[in-house]
Amino acid sequence: MSADYFKDFDAIPYEGPESTNPLAFRHYNKDKVVMGKRLEDHLRFAVCHWHNFCWDGKDIFGLGIGTFDRPWQRAGEDGLVLAREKMDAAFAFMEKLGVPFWCWHDYDIAPEGATIKESRENFAAMLDYAEEKMAATGIRLLWGTANAFSNPRYMCGASTNPNPEVFAYAASQVQNAMDATKRLGGSNYVLWGGREGYQNLLNTDLKRESEQMGRFLQMVVEHKHKIGFEGSILIEPKPQEPTKHQYDYDTATVYGFLQRFGLEKEIKVNIEVNHATLAGHSFEHEVATAASLGILGSVDANRGDHQNGWDTDQFPNNVPDLVPAVYEIIRAGGFTTGGFNFDTKLRRESVDAVDLFHGHIGGMDTIALAFMKAADLYESGELQSFVDNRYAGWNGELGEKIKSGQLSLAELSQWAVDQNIDPKPISGRQEYLENLVNRYVHR
Amino acid sequence: MSADYFKDFDAIPYEGPESTNPLAFRHYNKDKVVMGKRLEDHLRFAVCHWHNFCWDGKDIFGLGIGTFDRPWQRAGEDGLVLAREKMDAAFAFMEKLGVPFWCWHDYDIAPEGATIKESRENFAAMLDYAEEKMAATGIRLLWGTANAFSNPRYMCGASTNPNPEVFAYAASQVQNAMDATKRLGGSNYVLWGGREGYQNLLNTDLKRESEQMGRFLQMVVEHKHKIGFEGSILIEPKPQEPTKHQYDYDTATVYGFLQRFGLEKEIKVNIEVNHATLAGHSFEHEVATAASLGILGSVDANRGDHQNGWDTDQFPNNVPDLVPAVYEIIRAGGFTTGGFNFDTKLRRESVDAVDLFHGHIGGMDTIALAFMKAADLYESGELQSFVDNRYAGWNGELGEKIKSGQLSLAELSQWAVDQNIDPKPISGRQEYLENLVNRYVHR
Amino acid sequence: MSADYFKDFDAIPYEGPESTNPLAFRHYNKDKVVMGKRLEDHLRFAVCHWHNFCWDGKDIFGLGIGTFDRPWQRAGEDGLVLAREKMDAAFAFMEKLGVPFWCWHDYDIAPEGATIKESRENFAAMLDYAEEKMAATGIRLLWGTANAFSNPRYMCGASTNPNPEVFAYAASQVQNAMDATKRLGGSNYVLWGGREGYQNLLNTDLKRESEQMGRFLQMVVEHKHKIGFEGSILIEPKPQEPTKHQYDYDTATVYGFLQRFGLEKEIKVNIEVNHATLAGHSFEHEVATAASLGILGSVDANRGDHQNGWDTDQFPNNVPDLVPAVYEIIRAGGFTTGGFNFDTKLRRESVDAVDLFHGHIGGMDTIALAFMKAADLYESGELQSFVDNRYAGWNGELGEKIKSGQLSLAELSQWAVDQNIDPKPISGRQEYLENLVNRYVHR
Amino acid sequence: MSADYFKDFDAIPYEGPESTNPLAFRHYNKDKVVMGKRLEDHLRFAVCHWHNFCWDGKDIFGLGIGTFDRPWQRAGEDGLVLAREKMDAAFAFMEKLGVPFWCWHDYDIAPEGATIKESRENFAAMLDYAEEKMAATGIRLLWGTANAFSNPRYMCGASTNPNPEVFAYAASQVQNAMDATKRLGGSNYVLWGGREGYQNLLNTDLKRESEQMGRFLQMVVEHKHKIGFEGSILIEPKPQEPTKHQYDYDTATVYGFLQRFGLEKEIKVNIEVNHATLAGHSFEHEVATAASLGILGSVDANRGDHQNGWDTDQFPNNVPDLVPAVYEIIRAGGFTTGGFNFDTKLRRESVDAVDLFHGHIGGMDTIALAFMKAADLYESGELQSFVDNRYAGWNGELGEKIKSGQLSLAELSQWAVDQNIDPKPISGRQEYLENLVNRYVHR
Ligand SMILES: [Co+2]
Ligand SMILES: [Co+2]
Ligand SMILES: [Co+2]
Ligand SMILES: [Co+2]
Ligand SMILES: [Co+2]
Ligand SMILES: [Co+2]
Ligand SMILES: [Co+2]
Ligand SMILES: [Co+2]
Repeated sequence: MSADYFKDFDAIPYEGPESTNPLAFRHYNKDKVVMGKRLEDHLRFAVCHWHNFCWDGKDIFGLGIGTFDRPWQRAGEDGLVLAREKMDAAFAFMEKLGVPFWCWHDYDIAPEGATIKESRENFAAMLDYAEEKMAATGIRLLWGTANAFSNPRYMCGASTNPNPEVFAYAASQVQNAMDATKRLGGSNYVLWGGREGYQNLLNTDLKRESEQMGRFLQMVVEHKHKIGFEGSILIEPKPQEPTKHQYDYDTATVYGFLQRFGLEKEIKVNIEVNHATLAGHSFEHEVATAASLGILGSVDANRGDHQNGWDTDQFPNNVPDLVPAVYEIIRAGGFTTGGFNFDTKLRRESVDAVDLFHGHIGGMDTIALAFMKAADLYESGELQSFVDNRYAGWNGELGEKIKSGQLSLAELSQWAVDQNIDPKPISGRQEYLENLVNRYVHR
Repeated sequence: MSADYFKDFDAIPYEGPESTNPLAFRHYNKDKVVMGKRLEDHLRFAVCHWHNFCWDGKDIFGLGIGTFDRPWQRAGEDGLVLAREKMDAAFAFMEKLGVPFWCWHDYDIAPEGATIKESRENFAAMLDYAEEKMAATGIRLLWGTANAFSNPRYMCGASTNPNPEVFAYAASQVQNAMDATKRLGGSNYVLWGGREGYQNLLNTDLKRESEQMGRFLQMVVEHKHKIGFEGSILIEPKPQEPTKHQYDYDTATVYGFLQRFGLEKEIKVNIEVNHATLAGHSFEHEVATAASLGILGSVDANRGDHQNGWDTDQFPNNVPDLVPAVYEIIRAGGFTTGGFNFDTKLRRESVDAVDLFHGHIGGMDTIALAFMKAADLYESGELQSFVDNRYAGWNGELGEKIKSGQLSLAELSQWAVDQNIDPKPISGRQEYLENLVNRYVHR
Repeated sequence: MSADYFKDFDAIPYEGPESTNPLAFRHYNKDKVVMGKRLEDHLRFAVCHWHNFCWDGKDIFGLGIGTFDRPWQRAGEDGLVLAREKMDAAFAFMEKLGVPFWCWHDYDIAPEGATIKESRENFAAMLDYAEEKMAATGIRLLWGTANAFSNPRYMCGASTNPNPEVFAYAASQVQNAMDATKRLGGSNYVLWGGREGYQNLLNTDLKRESEQMGRFLQMVVEHKHKIGFEGSILIEPKPQEPTKHQYDYDTATVYGFLQRFGLEKEIKVNIEVNHATLAGHSFEHEVATAASLGILGSVDANRGDHQNGWDTDQFPNNVPDLVPAVYEIIRAGGFTTGGFNFDTKLRRESVDAVDLFHGHIGGMDTIALAFMKAADLYESGELQSFVDNRYAGWNGELGEKIKSGQLSLAELSQWAVDQNIDPKPISGRQEYLENLVNRYVHR
Repeated sequence: MSADYFKDFDAIPYEGPESTNPLAFRHYNKDKVVMGKRLEDHLRFAVCHWHNFCWDGKDIFGLGIGTFDRPWQRAGEDGLVLAREKMDAAFAFMEKLGVPFWCWHDYDIAPEGATIKESRENFAAMLDYAEEKMAATGIRLLWGTANAFSNPRYMCGASTNPNPEVFAYAASQVQNAMDATKRLGGSNYVLWGGREGYQNLLNTDLKRESEQMGRFLQMVVEHKHKIGFEGSILIEPKPQEPTKHQYDYDTATVYGFLQRFGLEKEIKVNIEVNHATLAGHSFEHEVATAASLGILGSVDANRGDHQNGWDTDQFPNNVPDLVPAVYEIIRAGGFTTGGFNFDTKLRRESVDAVDLFHGHIGGMDTIALAFMKAADLYESGELQSFVDNRYAGWNGELGEKIKSGQLSLAELSQWAVDQNIDPKPISGRQEYLENLVNRYVHR
């Protein structure tokens, strides 16, 4: 029985760094107070339904049979029955893991029906069930989203499809998923434009598609206000895969797009580590960029593989790699509606129930430890004061005049000539700063 | 004597596709009329001063002695004397090659002096000389720019430097180079932010630096209007190198930045093929993106190497690779102030004078042939009508209602449910379209 | 009915470069004699069963339902019935396309059974059917191979699996597929080690796994000789995907591996264009490397996408990109047992029967045209004589002495000092040579 | 005065993890005994002459003036005087840093002369000086090498040059550098084939060049034996840059090459972290591959940047990243003649003397800490026993029969069929193992 899939596991305890128990947290002590708040409230971990409970271990060279053997993925059973078993298993897992949040796509929690109406009925039924489960466990919803990329109808995009009926179909899913997210008290609603891009520029009208997508996002924001959803609307940037090019390439691209359609105050980003690196950026770059633009929303924790060019969606495991990004999150004031979600995947070879625990425990410990290191670094002020000092000249007379627009190009040029200025290179001290960060990581 | 460096070469004739003369054009017949205009007027080829006449063949593992042995790079001679010899050689080359335009950085044409004043004096002297040369040859200026990245003072950026004096120094160069560009009748003024980015996020205040750069660009635009420069201001995006990250990463990023500082109607992009690919985009993607946003300015023709991760700045040589991008340029109405400049480099091993001809002849022939193929494709309307037809639904009632904002998300969702829509996948026909393009390329 | 899936299509004619018929060859005139042989006999095109007839359009973000709607992929029907329908469709397609060869994995042509015995019975039944089809159409077998990567049992490798029973299972498939290949008169037997690598070095004994694989290949070669198979044994290198690292990374790696196990005279490579680029090499590099080592076997024609980091397996469409590689094939004497197979995939959005024709027609025309251009280039001798001349010094006295081992390091050093040699850089003429190739491509 | 360049610095002490002194080691306690040996003797750190003392901060967009302002790089002074000052500075630095080894290229320590003879005289003079310095400080030579890539004569390769005189020139340098390495008691002699590859396949005879290089390496090995050099000969693989393709692409390629020329017992590899990643491999992959082939020689510690596609040669700073590779080194028995050399570079913006200390201190602390963590992991046996257990089946009857060659393919196939085997997937436990490693890293 699916409900018992995790029956051999106890709740995962916090046992401290010295523990050698692989089914215990060594760093994530959820009640530990750091910077005035419990770790759980800082990190706001969420387990996703998709990779954990829906994926069966298929990959592109193994399309026939999955490697996992989850009971709720058995053949020949009614979809809603399996969906309930799956949800039972998911909540059992999340409760034992001790996470405060979950998140889902519409078709993760309810089987897609033969018609749009049947799909909505299935979804409605599962929402009731989810509401019960959430009430029973206290697990809250970090975000909901709609899967508008798996069904063949979306093969050429959802809102950016050449066929406006597909736009309409996506609208029906998103409206429904937004309403559901509100009903379940979700903190955010996420849009990942899985196929909002192109496979091929020859058959694509870039301008038209971007305007379609702009209108779609406006409709989403208008709907948010209409239904009184208090959470954030988030876009999850990704540069490519499965498409050749995705329109929400990275944070800077998304920001430009939002401005173009008057949405930069309405929509934020859900940054995925692996999508950052696929776009040619470090994770901390994406976080710092979003923070500097005021659109940092939430984080999808999956890391990539530095030697592979696709989205491996692995659990994070490298603390010093994460510290600079987590530091930026802290510096930006931490999460408000956002959190760290694990849209992370087991390796296809990690076929057992216990592997789900290993993956999440490792990921949570890694992030928790990185957070504590970054908090120490932040509280010390050492890095910030270095940076402030580095730009101190911009708070002087010349800097202020430039920033405030008092000087024209010609005036400033003339000043430079008159003063015969010859500014000298000043060391950027990269190695010193890297050592400084390591001092906080390893002590 | 430098002036005679190309004395053994005649003017490069057009001899047609059958010619086996390596020092003749086979495709670039500048007077050929295509789509109502001479090829020369469509393509507006420009030879750059930098890689062609300033670089001496040094590379990062060969910093001591360059492989080239240009007479104007000899040691022990006065800088202005050499600069004049270099300019003589450049104009001799350009005249023999038969290009209508050139382009430069300030310190390409004049040696940097010991002080800001001396640099300006050198530059002024060389401007006079350039004016003479241009008058004598009829070669016009496609664009000017300032080198605000080579001198150690710019090692941590120009307008984004932590030191406002460096900002001022850059301002003095840019003002001077803009005024010179206007004086020489330049069609554009280009900004390539060679080190406007960061090597290291730890020591960087991203927000501050972007605001500095925003203000700088505003000053540039204000100056343009003040001096009555009629050309375009262009930014050349590049994602990285020599920095880890450059703020003008790609066209979409630049557009977002311009909007943020109210400059999206004032500044366009100069797209470099190799920078497109370093940013993870095809060249045609960058062109189509810029065209769709109304900021397509000019093109820097250097291609990259698909297996190497740095800017190889090679001469273009693959016609079908270029056709989709050139098609987009044509579709966007072609160049106005822009053109194709060859900010391309010989391979370091191509040490002879004749190699400069081979590189440019090959590049010009490649672009000219791609242009003629793309023009045929454009004039046939075959590709455009495929695309128009693909999106035809958006001109129907549903499409118009969505585009015009008449439908809310909830209304559209309700419509989809009521209609019980079930849109089916329609083939994107990528292979057909690729064959169609090849039909124009190879006939 | 599947057998009629292509009934609306006629045989694809050759109509020449001027044709605008998308269902005609414009360049592949199979009977055209080039360098003394028919194009068909040079190129030896093969259509693969896998991507064309087995894949249903699923991808990693669309695992539920495929986009294709092939009748032989319908649910609820007996596997062997569908396999026969699929084979009917495949032969109908291949006959209309006019290719001389096909190729398959064991489980492409026969459904995997519930047990090893049932799988072999299915395979045996389909072999009979294949034999009939081949006799009826005259289509020959370029190569057979075994799919030892899709079933979950192979998730951690086949011959390199930590469990020797998996090695044995793979052995049973390979023996069976080799015998079948011989029976059907196949020209080659191919090994693609789809999961012969690791996902993770921590759980991997690299040395042990390479020795397992070495022994496996020895067994394959021994079996070849035992059964008297006259064709070639080929390995298809691939650097990664779906694994993090694959042991047959590229041609040079495979060669080292073969030498280590005494197999470098027994096994050749089947080079895939897209695998070359994923390994950081140009296609021509892999071909030239294999040719220089005497292990050039066959070619898998699928190209990649220069901006995406996974195996897109697209149809080739760029003639000048292919010319240097095809030139190397010609220079190496052309194919003996090998050929060009299309292990290429439609885009997932190309859902119609006609798209299969577009893909193959475009691919075949591209390769045929590249071949004719490369043959012209080869026959002219222009490139070869440039290269010969470049190394002419090595045929002189000094060169011969060095090559023949007559000089020790100390003697040669002494000679250099005594002669006070100062060899000067000689231009590599890259731009000239690129133009030369283009002269053959575009005339 | 150069000799005093580091006069304001004291010897760098070990102060332990709690220290906040940026000019102290926090982890590298050279006398600490780990696994029965002092850390210094395990790690065998070496400082290189090249990036530290020869490079002046030029980069490809800043070729004119370097950013560093080292006194020994001043203009207008005799080369040998400057070389002595540079060596004084280097030894002062190394002594204060407390490293046991140094390493050099011939032209790092002696200025290249106008002729081959003058170059040798300069080198001879500097060797005398180096010998004195080494005697005075006790600093030993980890390796010497010859720079056969910077001078324009090497632009098209050294041993692979189309001109045999260039081969001879390289031979004279290598013979001289080998003799010098022996004289100074060097532990290894390294060959980095900086331009042994091609920029362009069109002008390249791959076969010929590889045979030239094979002969060169044979000559090197013969010379080693002739002069009785007891150290190791090492090749440092690198896939590209400055060339498009380098023949010593990676460890597996080098091994194949060595076998081809009968050198696999004579030459080992010097693995550079950044070259591993440029070749598409993790550092631990390269180390494990070399160890499994018996050719692990030494390590060049410079890391790359995961977002940039060129050799950034940065100081290592990520402990968990290094642990798996260092674990493999320990498992292979540790270094014999090899060590960790810092062919690492300051960032160009790190212009001060103190930055040289920061870089090396950070690098040494990172490696030392990674070593201690890896040693703990190794000594625990936890990882090894997991792996041993995973492959336990190969020690059983079936495994032994396969390995020992007792079973033919047909026999094994028959056995599989007879037994009707159906091996099931067994979890690879990647997440568990990653957590296990982290348990050692963070405690
Ligand atoms: Co995600
Ligand atoms: Co992802
Ligand atoms: Co450029
Ligand atoms: Co460039
Ligand atoms: Co293939
Ligand atoms: Co492939
Ligand atoms: Co190195
Ligand atoms: Co390096």
